[in-house]
Parts: sequence; structure tokens; C-alpha cells
Amino acid sequence: MSQKNIIIAQSGGPTVAINASLAGVISAALENDNYGTIYGSVYGILGIFNDNLINLSDKVNEIPDFIQTLKTSPSMYLGSCRHKLPEYEDDDAPYAFIFNQFKKYNIGAFFYIGGNDSMDTVLKLSHYGRQIDSDIRIIGIPKTIDNDLCITDHTPGYGSAAKYIASSMLEIAHDTFIYSVPSITIVEIMGRDAGWLTASAALARNEYNTAPHLMYFPEVPFSKEQFINDIKHQLSLRNNVIVAVSEGIRNEDGQYISASAAVNDQFGHLQLSGTGKCLEYIIKEALNIKVRSIELNVLQRCAAHSSSLTDINESFELGRKAIQYSEEGLTKCMLILKRTSDSPYNVEIDKVDIDQIANNAKSIPRNWINEAGNDITDELYNYMLPLITGEPDILYKNGLPVYLPVSHLDKLD
Amino acid sequence: MSQKNIIIAQSGGPTVAINASLAGVISAALENDNYGTIYGSVYGILGIFNDNLINLSDKVNEIPDFIQTLKTSPSMYLGSCRHKLPEYEDDDAPYAFIFNQFKKYNIGAFFYIGGNDSMDTVLKLSHYGRQIDSDIRIIGIPKTIDNDLCITDHTPGYGSAAKYIASSMLEIAHDTFIYSVPSITIVEIMGRDAGWLTASAALARNEYNTAPHLMYFPEVPFSKEQFINDIKHQLSLRNNVIVAVSEGIRNEDGQYISASAAVNDQFGHLQLSGTGKCLEYIIKEALNIKVRSIELNVLQRCAAHSSSLTDINESFELGRKAIQYSEEGLTKCMLILKRTSDSPYNVEIDKVDIDQIANNAKSIPRNWINEAGNDITDELYNYMLPLITGEPDILYKNGLPVYLPVSHLDKLD
Repeated sequence: MSQKNIIIAQSGGPTVAINASLAGVISAALENDNYGTIYGSVYGILGIFNDNLINLSDKVNEIPDFIQTLKTSPSMYLGSCRHKLPEYEDDDAPYAFIFNQFKKYNIGAFFYIGGNDSMDTVLKLSHYGRQIDSDIRIIGIPKTIDNDLCITDHTPGYGSAAKYIASSMLEIAHDTFIYSVPSITIVEIMGRDAGWLTASAALARNEYNTAPHLMYFPEVPFSKEQFINDIKHQLSLRNNVIVAVSEGIRNEDGQYISASAAVNDQFGHLQLSGTGKCLEYIIKEALNIKVRSIELNVLQRCAAHSSSLTDINESFELGRKAIQYSEEGLTKCMLILKRTSDSPYNVEIDKVDIDQIANNAKSIPRNWINEAGNDITDELYNYMLPLITGEPDILYKNGLPVYLPVSHLDKLD
Repeated sequence: MSQKNIIIAQSGGPTVAINASLAGVISAALENDNYGTIYGSVYGILGIFNDNLINLSDKVNEIPDFIQTLKTSPSMYLGSCRHKLPEYEDDDAPYAFIFNQFKKYNIGAFFYIGGNDSMDTVLKLSHYGRQIDSDIRIIGIPKTIDNDLCITDHTPGYGSAAKYIASSMLEIAHDTFIYSVPSITIVEIMGRDAGWLTASAALARNEYNTAPHLMYFPEVPFSKEQFINDIKHQLSLRNNVIVAVSEGIRNEDGQYISASAAVNDQFGHLQLSGTGKCLEYIIKEALNIKVRSIELNVLQRCAAHSSSLTDINESFELGRKAIQYSEEGLTKCMLILKRTSDSPYNVEIDKVDIDQIANNAKSIPRNWINEAGNDITDELYNYMLPLITGEPDILYKNGLPVYLPVSHLDKLD
């Protein structure tokens, strides 16, 4: 085929591995004679609508160590969006516009790196492309810290978030054990619908650390009474009890626990309290004991300085493989990771039809959570462990990690 | 002198450098023929009351790489307490008990590693010791993430906390800039009475990152009206505004801003809202814009995996010097750091009489904060920068940092 250009975009929430996949696509495209200019679409699919493309081939030439630094830079170098395309049967104007842009820029392949919502975009563009007999390859590359994409063994970004959560849990345990006064510490972890991230806190356990002592997941209905009983039991075993909880736990009726502690602020507005804060209130109401809650915040998804080398390398290889697949003519697909062995850990890259992926979500299997619903099983532990291993070399300057400049974002500056 | 034993204890809140000072004392004591057994008092001064001492000389022999691993382990290996001794003029029983323990264990020197409250203990023990003509050396070794101890150029533990805060701010900026939708992000940082920790967020600024765009400190009375004006001005300059705020900001009347947003929970109890949450409410009330608040939690003081090598090394050397001073007969003192040069950065260790230290606190000088009270000056930036430099070698195993086991704490386990 004659030489074509490509467009890459990123979408959804940040992870510390999504730039590694971008780096993988760029590095493989540069080695491939069939591909010319590599464009990055700024702010996800919106960059195509707004003609906001940057020339990544130029960036590689201008910025020293561009690919290596990109590989370990957090969040999304190309920016993001949360934009849902209409069904093309209802409104094909945006599709016509996008494919017109593809023509204008002589595009041979479009790569979208993202989670569930982004794969919906890949699905819709693929279907429209087939309908108009386009030969442009439309390929999805997975990422999400939530690990809730189907079929793939795990999602890029999950391992690094899990590593951050586990090391934070270990450090919080060291912080908590120093006082002889009994205490409860609640650690709230991301995850509205799946408990994969919360489960990773269990990786902090070692020969001296038994925390977290209790764990609660969206997959199991939350009972306030059971929770108080669990806490009382733990207090009979140890001085300092540490609890890991998903933000998305719900009661038997499916109501978020965080919503049940909604409070009125000084202006009379209803404010949703955090799930951790809510468990803190429940304990204060039931027991006379020192209690605090800690919300692991957005650093779960952007603390690149403590990312998992396994995660970064897999994400990079997924990006490289996407170029290979596109050259082989594959389209309307998402790349996946297939685990071929647990010990030694090994994965292979494969692909599936995007119809199998989009708009489905993967929860923790119920039998990977213990019967009482307050801890994980060994199977889940063994599944997670290899994903957090290895530490990338991060360059530091003036005491801080060196990441790739993102001056092309936040344009008002 | 005939060979004597020593006791070391740690007290107050955790830092990631306080174990480095403990490691320094141990390493120098081991090399010193005048000192025999090295005891650690578990849970601060309480370990002496409860006869809860561990033999650190044995630990060094039993645990491979004990001193090296201790140096970079977070929080407090010996546990902590918050225990205030009475004035000995009012009640000398606890003092008589402590000095009796010193006699029982043939103690020549007692080292207390801690912050302001711990130095009050050093002061009182020193005065009592002098009154009874004791020749036991009583020496304070500083630590606190708050950097609010007098006379010393800075406090051990501050540099590592500052490094964590600055790198988190940088990663939060990467996380925030990815959307084209205008937003405000509030980052709440520790510090009830001094803004040193919040100030360190400014170290995140570099050739592409201008965040934090606004900063608020306990040293300057907080005005809600000025805050809203500041935010509006920043929104005219950029899309995504990031604010760093000390938990301890107060209004003109000295009332904590966090207290002004106290809310009633579901049980009708008054709950203090966080300062960041409070600023979030203020913005929601005044402006129609996306806003969120992030509380940098206890990881500020326990994230040893990202500690400052400068901080760790200085803390270690302070511990070593404490042994030298005790051998020279010094007592009733606290060690300090004196900065002899900014560029290249250099410090020397010295000591001051404990009377000059205890129960005083050091705020940011007003002329190190800009006139508007919403940013720092270059002087403060240059003061902080060298303190966060350098990265210690942290050993990892199974994806997590290797820290020293603390099985001797949390005894109920």
C-alpha cells in the first residue's frame, strides 16, 4: 500500500500506563515504512472534531528521549475527553466529519487508547467504517485502572494503581501501628462498580503486616450490622485495625453507602460524604474508639514515580502490537492480554472483535472473595501479585521525577 | 568512664526520617567502646515506665542489614506516644521512677527523637537530672515534618514530606490538565499552625507546570472574598486552576476555616469538614464550575519510598553526632542543623541548650510569603529546594519496598 499517516488519541480517566501504550504505537510506527506522519489528537476524539492535532513525528525529533520519557510519564500526554458518539443510524454527521478528516490527513489507521467508554467509540467508528466500505483500520488499545474490561486477563494501568495502593497500605500500616492506643483506620479506595483496586491492598500483607484486616467490595452487599461485628471481632485480636473499602459499596437495596451519609453543608446544600467518612461515622456511633478515614485520592491513577515495570512494559508492547495488527489489515478490534502462565508469570498479546468488549464490565468473581464477603481468597492474591512487580528507572531532577512537558494542554496558560 | 548502656526513644508524629536518626545513634554507639547495650524504649517514654525495652544491639546481630534498612523505613520503629510529663516541682514521682530505671539498666545517656512536645520531655528530664546531680546525658534529636522547631535551619523529616508533596502536586497537575473543561482543584496539605509543608507544593513548578496557582497559609488570615477574587483572576489566565492550602488556615478572627463548614451528619452530630472540602463549598456557592478537593493524607509523613536522600542522610548524621556529643559530656541540649551555604547547599551540625527550643514554634517569616498572601517568594523557594534532593536506594521485593518488620508493636496480634 502507499504510505499512510496515522492518528492516535487517548480518552477516559488517567492511568500511569496509558502513555506507555502511546509510546509503543509511536515507536513501532516510526520503524514502519508503510506509515508516514504520526498525529496525536488532543483531548481524545474532540481533537479530530476541532482540528487539534499535533505532529508526534516532529516531537520525537525535537524532544530528547521523547519515547523513553513518555513511557513513564503519568496521565495522558494527548489530553482526554468524555465524549459519547450518537448512534450513526440516528445522526451520521459526526461520523462523516471524522472520516472526512481521516481523508484530509491521509489516515490509514486510527488508534484509541481507553477504557469501556472509549471502546464504545471504537465500536461505533468501526461499524460506520464498515458501512461506508472504508479501509481505515480502527483499533482499540485497552487501559483503565479499574481492571473492569472483559476478556483481557487484566487492563494496562491496573498493575501500577495496585502497586501504589499496596505500598500506600503498607506505609499506612507502619504509620498506624506506632501507638499503643486502640484505633480503627478506614482506607477508601477507587472503584464504583468493581473491587479490583481495593483487593490490591491485600498485597501489602507480609511476614509482619496483617493489614488490611477487613475488606469491603461493590461485589458484595454491605451490611452495617455485619461491619460493626467484624470490627468488634478484629479489636479482640489486635490494637490497630485497618479497613480497605471500595468507594462504591452498596447496601442490600443497591443504595450507595456514601449516599446514606449525605449531609447538609453550611449553605443548606446536600453534600455526598465519602464512603470512608461514612464508615467512620458508623463506627463513632457504635463504638467508643479512635477512628479516622483516609481517602486514597487521584494519586492512585497518576503516581507514575511508583509505577509497575510489568505494567509499563505490557502497555508499551500493546502499543507496538497495535501497529503490527493494523498493518496486517486488522480493524474493529481491541487488543487483549492473555495469561499463559502464573509462575513464572507470562502473557501474550491477542485481539478480539470490539463487539465482544464494548459496554460490558468485569467484576471480581464471587468465589475470589471469601464467604463472609470481607476478604479476598488466595486465587485473587496470586492473580494480582505478578502485576505489580518491577520498578522502572525514573530520572529525577531537583528532587522530582522528570516527566514529559504537557504545555500543549491547558491552552489558556 | 566505665562502660554504660544507652536508651533511645521516639515520640510524637511519624516522619520517614526519624528511623534514620535512630539508625545513626545505633551505628555510632556500636562503634563506641564506652557504650554497651543499646536499648530501645517502646512507645516513647512509656516504654521506660512499663519496662518495655528492646535490645537493639541484639537486633543488629539478628536482622541482616538492620541499620541500612532501618535508615529508609517509614514511621517509628520503636513506636511512639503523646505523653506530657508533669512539672517535677508538682509531682516528682514519674521522674524518680525514670531515673531509677536508668540506674537499673546502667544507663549513661538517654536520647529522645521528636518534635516540640518531645523536647518538652527532654527539657523536664534535663532539669530534674540537674537537680538530683545526675550525670546521665539527656539529649534531644529533632524531627518533625512540620519544620516548626526554632533555631535549627530545618527539621529532619521536613525534606522528605516536602518531596512527597511536591511530586504529588506535579502528578496531580498532570492528572488535571487533561480535560479541556475548566476546573478548580483544591489540594489540602498538613500544617495546623505553620505553612512550611504547603509552601513545598511550589517546588512542583517547572518549565511547563505553573501549579499550584494559588497558595494559602496559616500565617496569613484567610478572606473568603479575596479567595473568590483570586480564583476568578486565575480562571481568566488558564483552564485548570490548582490551589494548595494548609489545613490550618484561619479567618481574621482566628477561627479555623474548616470549623466554619461544620456539618451535621446523619446522626445529628456535628462533624468538622476538611479545609479543602470547605473551600470546595465556597467555590460551588460562588461560581458555576467543576471543582474537587484532594486531601494529601498521612502518606505525607510516611511515604518512605519517595523520601529525600538529603533528609535521610542529615537525619542519620544527627543521630551519629548525638553519640559524640554525649561522650563529650554534653546534656540538656538538642541537636540542630546550621546552613552554611545555599549554593552549593551545605549544613553543619551543632547543638543548643534545650531551654531555647522547647515549647516554641517557628512560622514562615511574613516576608517569605508574597504581599497578597497567596504565594511564596523566591527566598522561600530557594530555602526549600535543596532539602528535597536525592533519592535513597530502596530495595523492592514482590513489587513493594522492603521495610524493617515492626512485629514488636501492636502486641495483641
